[in-house]
Amino acid sequence: MSGLVWLNGGLQAAASAGIAVSDRGFLLGDGVFETLRWRGGAVVRLEAHLARLARGAAVLGLPLPPPTTLAAALADTATANGLVDGALRLTVSAGPGVRGLPRPATPTPTVLVTAAPSGPALAPARVLIATVTRRNEHSPLSGIKSLAYLDQILARNEAAARDADDALLLNTVGHVACATAATLFAVLDGALVTPPLASGALPGTRRAALLAALGGEERILAPSDLRRATELFLTSSLMVRPVVAVDGQTVGEGRPGPVTAAALSQA
Amino acid sequence: MSGLVWLNGGLQAAASAGIAVSDRGFLLGDGVFETLRWRGGAVVRLEAHLARLARGAAVLGLPLPPPTTLAAALADTATANGLVDGALRLTVSAGPGVRGLPRPATPTPTVLVTAAPSGPALAPARVLIATVTRRNEHSPLSGIKSLAYLDQILARNEAAARDADDALLLNTVGHVACATAATLFAVLDGALVTPPLASGALPGTRRAALLAALGGEERILAPSDLRRATELFLTSSLMVRPVVAVDGQTVGEGRPGPVTAAALSQA
Repeated sequence: MSGLVWLNGGLQAAASAGIAVSDRGFLLGDGVFETLRWRGGAVVRLEAHLARLARGAAVLGLPLPPPTTLAAALADTATANGLVDGALRLTVSAGPGVRGLPRPATPTPTVLVTAAPSGPALAPARVLIATVTRRNEHSPLSGIKSLAYLDQILARNEAAARDADDALLLNTVGHVACATAATLFAVLDGALVTPPLASGALPGTRRAALLAALGGEERILAPSDLRRATELFLTSSLMVRPVVAVDGQTVGEGRPGPVTAAALSQA
Repeated sequence: MSGLVWLNGGLQAAASAGIAVSDRGFLLGDGVFETLRWRGGAVVRLEAHLARLARGAAVLGLPLPPPTTLAAALADTATANGLVDGALRLTVSAGPGVRGLPRPATPTPTVLVTAAPSGPALAPARVLIATVTRRNEHSPLSGIKSLAYLDQILARNEAAARDADDALLLNTVGHVACATAATLFAVLDGALVTPPLASGALPGTRRAALLAALGGEERILAPSDLRRATELFLTSSLMVRPVVAVDGQTVGEGRPGPVTAAALSQA
């Protein structure tokens, strides 16, 4: 995280900025966030991100600052940190509360923007199918980017413990939903496919853009479909990453294929 | 929340205490907590709470301070706030991190203790069965008290919107799991029963104590079982609360029955 953050209305030093100990984001995971790519002096797909944030806040019943305020906070944070190419994170929690589950009648959301420069490009991923947990497609939280990220952390920890780069999550009926912080795309029977939102997939901003640009479609995917896919790759707002192995089995020819290359060319 | 909190080693004013903006508890819900009853100068069932916290931390792979440190922090917070009868909350998050899901190699957990006096006794509850979301019994998080509390908040919000006091959550196959922040007990065919942990119930400290004291047993419960139950009540570390209606239908004779009274006498 870079040195300056935008918190509740203005920039301040990250080291001295503090979230209230009564913040419902910290105590109960009550909030939403977006991770956004900053490049060329602007946020990539800003409108799509703000629209998704607004949908998530509506699901939770949280008020949001106006989009212009959020857009300015993002730009100010990037500029103040001298960000050239990197990641911004916009977090909106339900703010301070009293003990217990009910929110104050008039919540005062906490709004935080942080910046981080881009890391090195990621090597093609070897992934596993998480066994530790399942994605809950019955919860509206699977369709929004909420602070409840602990199942994904458990899956990522499982991947690390088993020497993999990332994990794929199955939903409660055993269909493939997503990776821990990315959309999964597959090339199957010559078609570009990705799990439908009903499987528990998050409506990713790059997911939507790639479906449109490359003519992909939603399809329910079983683990067995992954074993016969000729290409697999992961996408997020920050990256397109080829997948070259699942549970130790090589995908296709073990190197990024032509559809993956096309997706990378859009990144 | 009372005026003094214990944060990372000592007491300080709640108003000026701050959680780092990089705290993984705030950003990702990465942590666990306990809500404990303070009464008669001591925590009720302290060992059971610390044992559950330890199990939760183990599931997440989080290091914990020694139990003696946590016990002293709880007592210090209660005493410093002049708490006579009330609630303590012990929160342990994964602490500060960098961008992304992986934790630092050596996490520095954030440890927070807050206090709140007891509120007025709660009237018997009219509850509904949540339709907005389901409990994910496939996730290990359903068995620990993690910061990922947002599904329960959604269910509680649904209850408030439909003029009920609380909501019951079904799991992904339609069995009753729990209330939003409490265990559900039912008297069914003359027996005291509660959903098994495999249904997604949290192993509550009072749940265990009541099962032992009153000779209850675990049983898978369908919504139809609730309609024929002669008594229903909710329990947490803080309370035993009769349930007098589910989805508008009166439970039993519409007033707390003898088994509920026995549970209340244990509280």
